[in-house]
Amino acid sequence: MTVANHFELLRTDGTARRGQLTTPHGVVRTPAFMPVGTLGAMKSLHWRDVRDAGADIVLGNTYHLMLRPGAERVASFGGLQKFTTWNGPMLTDSGGFQVMSLAQLRKVTEQGVTFRSHIDGAKFELTPERAIEIQRLLNSDIAMQLDECVRLPAEHADIDRAMQLSLRWAERCKRAFETAPEGYMLFGIAQGGDVPELRRASAQGLIDIGFHGYAIGGLAVGEPQAVMLAMIEEVVPILPLDRPRYLMGVGTPDDMLEAVARGVDMFDCVMPTRNGRHGMAFTRHGQINMRNARHQDDPRPLDEESTWPAARDYSRAYLHHLVRSGETLGAMLLSEINIAYYQSLMQGIRAAIDAGTFEEFRARTREGWARGDIPPR
Amino acid sequence: MTVANHFELLRTDGTARRGQLTTPHGVVRTPAFMPVGTLGAMKSLHWRDVRDAGADIVLGNTYHLMLRPGAERVASFGGLQKFTTWNGPMLTDSGGFQVMSLAQLRKVTEQGVTFRSHIDGAKFELTPERAIEIQRLLNSDIAMQLDECVRLPAEHADIDRAMQLSLRWAERCKRAFETAPEGYMLFGIAQGGDVPELRRASAQGLIDIGFHGYAIGGLAVGEPQAVMLAMIEEVVPILPLDRPRYLMGVGTPDDMLEAVARGVDMFDCVMPTRNGRHGMAFTRHGQINMRNARHQDDPRPLDEESTWPAARDYSRAYLHHLVRSGETLGAMLLSEINIAYYQSLMQGIRAAIDAGTFEEFRARTREGWARGDIPPR
Repeated sequence: MTVANHFELLRTDGTARRGQLTTPHGVVRTPAFMPVGTLGAMKSLHWRDVRDAGADIVLGNTYHLMLRPGAERVASFGGLQKFTTWNGPMLTDSGGFQVMSLAQLRKVTEQGVTFRSHIDGAKFELTPERAIEIQRLLNSDIAMQLDECVRLPAEHADIDRAMQLSLRWAERCKRAFETAPEGYMLFGIAQGGDVPELRRASAQGLIDIGFHGYAIGGLAVGEPQAVMLAMIEEVVPILPLDRPRYLMGVGTPDDMLEAVARGVDMFDCVMPTRNGRHGMAFTRHGQINMRNARHQDDPRPLDEESTWPAARDYSRAYLHHLVRSGETLGAMLLSEINIAYYQSLMQGIRAAIDAGTFEEFRARTREGWARGDIPPR
Repeated sequence: MTVANHFELLRTDGTARRGQLTTPHGVVRTPAFMPVGTLGAMKSLHWRDVRDAGADIVLGNTYHLMLRPGAERVASFGGLQKFTTWNGPMLTDSGGFQVMSLAQLRKVTEQGVTFRSHIDGAKFELTPERAIEIQRLLNSDIAMQLDECVRLPAEHADIDRAMQLSLRWAERCKRAFETAPEGYMLFGIAQGGDVPELRRASAQGLIDIGFHGYAIGGLAVGEPQAVMLAMIEEVVPILPLDRPRYLMGVGTPDDMLEAVARGVDMFDCVMPTRNGRHGMAFTRHGQINMRNARHQDDPRPLDEESTWPAARDYSRAYLHHLVRSGETLGAMLLSEINIAYYQSLMQGIRAAIDAGTFEEFRARTREGWARGDIPPR
């Protein structure tokens, strides 16, 4: 059956793709990195900085928001975009992954998953139908199907069972989404762990059902990067060229560059904000630990070539002082510097694909990371 | 002996005063509230927001900065203004108050105070001379004398002893400050607890020594507001009309309004940022607890008449959600809203004194606080 398409593929450069996705709340330039605002807030960041950093779209989470403040309450404020003041495109995770990693006493059946809240132990049920209902209440531009994600390494039989269940849930999500207004999207999620034939079967099953876009889930859960890339290489060739491809929960700048090279269009990850809170900075020199005493007397900025003011305005010595002192401003500055670096990486990738120079960009960027940070003074 | 004067008294309205203080890093409009950036950072706030909120001057602290990152290190970066990027007027507390409240194993002698750091137990000595040296290294525009502050209630003999010691330290600070370049200032601190004759003796002793400005210390340490105001009324009439008067560590908006009415020019307090981190908002309706469930479904902003965007752009429901969820953005927004309210109060006070309408402003402002928050919907 036909599903409306809101993705436009503008250009390819090898397997890398440049496109744009039109959502009810605006256009998303791809490849795109979606900063994660799990609970309706970007940790340690103002919304204006998320926007100024160049993010077109952000991610919220069904599991967290259903517990607090509650999907019906968000709906009463006109949706997550209005509630938060972000007012731009928003994708919501279906909650499945967080139920597995955060909830207490969770139980998966054919019907769905029952669990107790990690906040107060209250009992909840998340079915494919309820996951879609919640995401519609949140007014999410892009809803994700409910899936079961298996942590790796795992037995073949377990991976297979979860993948097959996720496919049946995908069908139910598709049906539940049928009444959504034009322009809103639902993505299916390919599972299958680290087993090539299960990955392919999952992707093919989703295509048979038909979605606005296709995600690759259950990766970046502890497996080596080579395994992750191999699984992408199994799935991508099966996916329709004209639909967006989203690699969930990924990752490091290097992970993203390699996934773009293999045809992925969208990413999300808590790493830039989480690592920022722990004193780590992402730059063109790689990842830099600002707690390290080497920065203590260094008057130089983190990266004088950065397009982000905070990466140029503050000395390494001051950032080091803030991090060592546990000052919130340290987490605020490093989080925004990291989000801005992730966005500038995406901007660089998009420009390179547009120019047909993605391979040079990839090589030059990897070289910068490999050289590492400038020597201490 | 003569001490250069950098304060200009522009206008009086009753006992309330409107003036300006010229520092090496810029002009301070008085009455002035100085946000507190103890460790060279404003907690949960960007420096640009401190500036945009209307603060002309901020406060740093000798005790904290001598421990981390160290005064000599700050000096190597050209001073605290450059190190932090604030680059405006800065006043530094001498560290005496924090040694008493934070340090371990502290011992006060005629020479000074020895103590162990609350961070790592390292041993330090703070003498009047070293307190001035540190503040000069920090490049503080306004240095404070080292004093001994007695927590109330206290015995008369203890208050007297500490006040007399503080006066002898004031003389030593004055001598140590003699080599400071033109334009930099040193303020003496009147002590004397809640004993009128000791307060007067302290103020007179300081005037005999001669300072660029005069502070009233050892208040807002737990005594009733009436006692604090009575002590201000003892000290202010003695102080020279042409010098700035600074009430240390004060306070609530109401404390400041009443102190301005009694002739005080400068204030500092951690309350707007500390209370902001704990979910409390200062507005023209008084102090509002954003944790309270009454805000849970309220789409209205905190104060639609506020001049600060965040007080108008976010719903009470969203702020409540952030505070209840422990999201850093909640602390960030409430801290900036509070700093902005304190600054707008000072702006209102200055405009009212300029217009000769301070008494009306005071009555109208107090009425607003007394009416309290708007009713829940």
